[in-house]
This record gives sequence, C-alpha cells and structure tokens, in this order.
Amino acid sequence: MPEFNLQCPVPLPLETVQMAHGGGGRVMRNLLESLLLPAFANPALEARHDAALLELGGARLAFTTDSFVVTPRSFPGGDIGELAVYGTVNDLACGGALPRFLSCALILEEGLPLAELANLVTSMQQAATRCGVTIVTGDTKVVDRGRGDGLYINTTGLGLVPEGRVLGPRQVRPGDAILVSGDLGRHGVAVLSVREGLAFETPILSDCAPIHHLAEALWTAGISVHCLRDPTRGGLGAVLNEIGLDGGLSLEVREQDIPVVPAVAAACELLGLDPLQVACEGRLVAFVPGTQAEAALAALHQLPEGRGAAIIGRVLDAGTVPVTLRTRLGTERILDLPSGEQLPRIC
Amino acid sequence: MPEFNLQCPVPLPLETVQMAHGGGGRVMRNLLESLLLPAFANPALEARHDAALLELGGARLAFTTDSFVVTPRSFPGGDIGELAVYGTVNDLACGGALPRFLSCALILEEGLPLAELANLVTSMQQAATRCGVTIVTGDTKVVDRGRGDGLYINTTGLGLVPEGRVLGPRQVRPGDAILVSGDLGRHGVAVLSVREGLAFETPILSDCAPIHHLAEALWTAGISVHCLRDPTRGGLGAVLNEIGLDGGLSLEVREQDIPVVPAVAAACELLGLDPLQVACEGRLVAFVPGTQAEAALAALHQLPEGRGAAIIGRVLDAGTVPVTLRTRLGTERILDLPSGEQLPRIC
Repeated sequence: MPEFNLQCPVPLPLETVQMAHGGGGRVMRNLLESLLLPAFANPALEARHDAALLELGGARLAFTTDSFVVTPRSFPGGDIGELAVYGTVNDLACGGALPRFLSCALILEEGLPLAELANLVTSMQQAATRCGVTIVTGDTKVVDRGRGDGLYINTTGLGLVPEGRVLGPRQVRPGDAILVSGDLGRHGVAVLSVREGLAFETPILSDCAPIHHLAEALWTAGISVHCLRDPTRGGLGAVLNEIGLDGGLSLEVREQDIPVVPAVAAACELLGLDPLQVACEGRLVAFVPGTQAEAALAALHQLPEGRGAAIIGRVLDAGTVPVTLRTRLGTERILDLPSGEQLPRIC
Repeated sequence: MPEFNLQCPVPLPLETVQMAHGGGGRVMRNLLESLLLPAFANPALEARHDAALLELGGARLAFTTDSFVVTPRSFPGGDIGELAVYGTVNDLACGGALPRFLSCALILEEGLPLAELANLVTSMQQAATRCGVTIVTGDTKVVDRGRGDGLYINTTGLGLVPEGRVLGPRQVRPGDAILVSGDLGRHGVAVLSVREGLAFETPILSDCAPIHHLAEALWTAGISVHCLRDPTRGGLGAVLNEIGLDGGLSLEVREQDIPVVPAVAAACELLGLDPLQVACEGRLVAFVPGTQAEAALAALHQLPEGRGAAIIGRVLDAGTVPVTLRTRLGTERILDLPSGEQLPRIC
C-alpha cells in the first residue's frame, strides 16, 4: 500500500483528547490506528467497515454502534432522536444488512425537561416504525447537572445479512464507479444555521433519513455492490479518503457531477465551508463495478429519496494522492482528509 | 396482579430529570413505566428482562445495552473499562446466553488525558479476554470540555441462547428458592470510599467481575433456572422488589442468611446505608425451584467466585408487600424499593 504523507509541518503528538478526535478526520483516524484498533485487535474490527459482520448460531449478522451528541438537540428537518435511529439503521444498510433490532441507551443530564424527553423518544419510535426496526432493549443513566448536555443517545443495531453479500472497503476495485444518492451537505448546514443563529432566505432542512431502501434497491437490481458508506462526519471527502487510504487506491471525482443545491453552496461559501466535507445524515455513497454504473443509477432513481442520485467519479489504481477532485474549471485539486471536522458535534 | 401501593404521601409529579431517575429505584421505575416502555411498546421490551431474547436468521440471541458513567473512573478493585465489559457480559448471562460479542462506544470529554484513555481501553480488552468475548465494533464521539465527565462508555452485547433455556421474571413461581452467589455491597462501598475520601482499616475492593461461569454452572448441573439477575443499582433490594412487583408475588428473605462481610457491614453502618440496597457488580441472584435449591448451591460452591453462595429466601404467593425481610432479631420488616439510589453514578 503506497504511503500518502501530505502533512507539513509534522504536528506535535497530542497528550489530551481534542474536539478533532471526534471529527472524522485525520486526528480521529490517528486515534483509531494508534490507540483503539491495536488495543482491541481482531479481524471483525480490522475490516474497518461501518458495521461488523458476524456469524452467530448459523446466522449472518451485522452489528454496529453509534452515540449521538448533536447540539442543538432539535434542528430544521430533525432531532437527535430520529438521528439516533437513522444513523444506526444506515450503518446496518451500509453493512449489506436488513436492519431489524435496535438498543437505546440514554445518558440524561439532571434538569432535562421530561416533556422534551417524551418528545424525543416519540420521535425515536416514529423513526423506528418508518424503518421497520424494533427497539428491544434499553438503559437509562443520569449524570449531574453540568456534566452532560441534556441527553446523549447510544443506539446499537442488529441486522441480517442475506447470503452472498460481500462488501466493504477492501472489495473496492480500480474501475469501480462512485455514486451518491442525492445532494450533499444539508445536515451540517441545517445544524450550523441553528447553532449560529443564521437565517437563510430558504430554510435548509437536514437530509436526515433512512437509506436502507436505497441500498436494497441496488441489491434487487442485481448490482454487485462493492462498498456502501453514508457520508456523515467529514462528509463525502472523509468517505473517499478512507476508501482510498484503506485500499491503497486513488479516487477521482468530478465537481460538476457532485450534487449540491444552490442554497447549501451559498451557505457554505458564506461560512467558509467546503460542502464536500460537510456531514449528511441521509445519503448513500456506493462503489459498484463501472459496467453497472448506469444500472445502479437507474435503481436509485426509482425511489423518491434517490431522485437526485448521480455518478460522481471512479476508482483508479494507486496514484500519488488518495482523492483528486476535477474542478468545474477543468483543473485538478487534492481533496484531502481534513484534520478534524469543520463542524464539531454534528451527530 | 395485586397492587402494592406503599407511597405516602403521594409525591408531586416531576417535571425534569432528577438523579433518582437513574437510581434503579421507584422513580426510575416510574420513568420506565410512564414514558419509555409506552413509547417503544413491544413484546421483547415488555418481558422486562436484563437482555432481550430475539430470534434472527434461525439463531436465538440475547441482546443488551448499558452505559457506564461511574465516578470516579478508577476505584479499589476495578475501573470503568472493566466494569463496562463485565456489566454487559453479566446482563447477557442473566438472559441465559453465552456471551460472544460486544460493541464499545466512547463519549470522550475534551481534555481527557490520552494516557488514561489508553489504560482504560487496555483494561476493557483484558476484561473481554477474561470473558471470552470480542469487541467487534465501536464509535468515538468527543464533547466539549465541561460537557462530559472524562468519559462515558456504552457497551452493547450479543450472546447465543442455547435451546431449551426459558427464563425471566415471569418464570418465577411460588416455592422457588432465592440464592446469591457471594457477599453483597462491596462495589458500592468501594466506589463511595474513594468518592468521599474515606479510608477503612481493611480496604474494601469492588466485587466487579464476570458471572457467566456461575450461570453456566447452574445450567450444567441441570437446574431448571427460572430467573437470573445481577444486583447492580439498588442492590438486592431492587432485584427482589422488581421480581415481586412484575410477577405479583411476595418474596421472603432471611437477614441472617444474606452474606455481607463485616467490613462492608461496618462501613454501611457508619455511612447510614443499607447493604441490601448497595450495588454489586459481580454477584448473581438466582431463582430456582425449591426442590433444586441445594443442588444449585452445590453447583455455585464449586467455582471460586461462588464459594460465598447462599440460599437466602423463598418466593411465596402474593401477599400484602412484595418483599419481607426476617431480621436477625426474629422480627419482620418490609424491604422496600428505594425512591432513588443511595449512591448515584455507581456504574
């Protein structure tokens, strides 16, 4: 695997946890590679997929966990409750699974209004019903006032992986096409707009939604899916860099083909953000054989949530950088893995 | 099911989350019954067992989740890392399962020393190795300084339930014997000693340990186990009250047969705590047919961690109160479900 070393100057080693350790970028990757993965070393974890694939009692299972610490807890187009359901359902879908069961563990801060808690769990149950999953086990802890942030939610998901589905970062091959299921960056901009008290002419709603029907549409259409990802922390840029780095591949994407709605593009311009590095919470990135790209696109287009799907690039053999962006102006630039996250606590 | 209504005077309805909502007592039970269980209503959740029993892809699975927010993060005899592994392994064992896989989701506070994080994940891995479980998937979030408490850990566990095992609060019958696997109250007292800066003549170590071998010893001995519980928040008192309330039964336990070591008894006396309501993190409470009580006791005694096991009481038909304690003096008193928890943030 070729080495990509684009850091300059070399940063000093960190001694304490920084916000960037949770940002989905290079600092978080370092924490995983230097501390967490070596401590827990095992093949399921080292597959570095969104969900672990397990065999248990003759069943092929996908198993995945996520904590949600988004602030504010409600934002245009969603809240932390539905995000906690969709986030884990989407990781199961990216593991090739049919989502089935969720656990729900709440860490409540003393003083949270019970009426807000009631609204958020109702929101979770509505999201679960929409996804066809059942919340079957839970836990509630309370921490002292000032030691939490209202509430944190962990959901852990369990799904069934049908026979024959083999996918993950290591299945991605040169020649694969890269697709996205819709326009990018809405979730991050929606959260930021509330946090910073910004009012846009057209309110930007989070894209927070389940993507398992999109994934199933690809399987149903007979596509040999190589890898599925949902571009959350770090956005599309983080997903592409991870696939490139983990697989020793180079990826090339075309700016003009990447869907970003004008309102999000304008907000990002105003805020100094790169929409390709802003989180989505209801989008799918698919890596499929180049010969099946059009069929995969047609399958996504059939669903309402896939109307905005596009083929945005392709996978090449290893090059000098993991991800290259061909700009609208016809030039090329490196789409780098950000150091931390442009917007912390987005999910 | 008879109604047990021992509250006097009637408390005012709460409008915000209180520490007691996480304490394992009556206030937490009210939150579950009035808000969480109705929101997520489904049969698996309503079984009200420590782990949900699921059928998936032909496999019988147990699935359980717990967040750990104990303060301080290290205490005599253990730390939050091993507690996070044992706590979930123990809930799987109480579900009749062979523990297999764990997820690990970390919520880190900005500023946590990375060296401490490294120690805690090493501790988790050692605990996982001891239990024969693999940590196969994870998540890391970071919250701003002052918005967490160093770190919170969620583990969610997956285990395999062998055919023929049917257990839970609803399997408990009049005539059942009640056993504990060892002396009670060490964990709570150990945590409190650090938190309050108390030094006892003999240091009291937490009992934090896995209990799945104890559970398996019962199954191997051919015991028809009706229910297993680990007495964490709220201690033995909470477990007995839950079984009594959920099953519409009365339980009777004998103070002189309940093992509490002198150091714990003395510390509790000094601190004004009831050792029967102090958390353990490595003890098993078993409900087995009365005719098999001696055989179950012998099975527990065979393991080093079960040397201190005892038969402490029995299950009766419904009476006027869920749990009666026959004291050393020969009198009877109600062992009530506490309102909250004597010691918050014990796990």
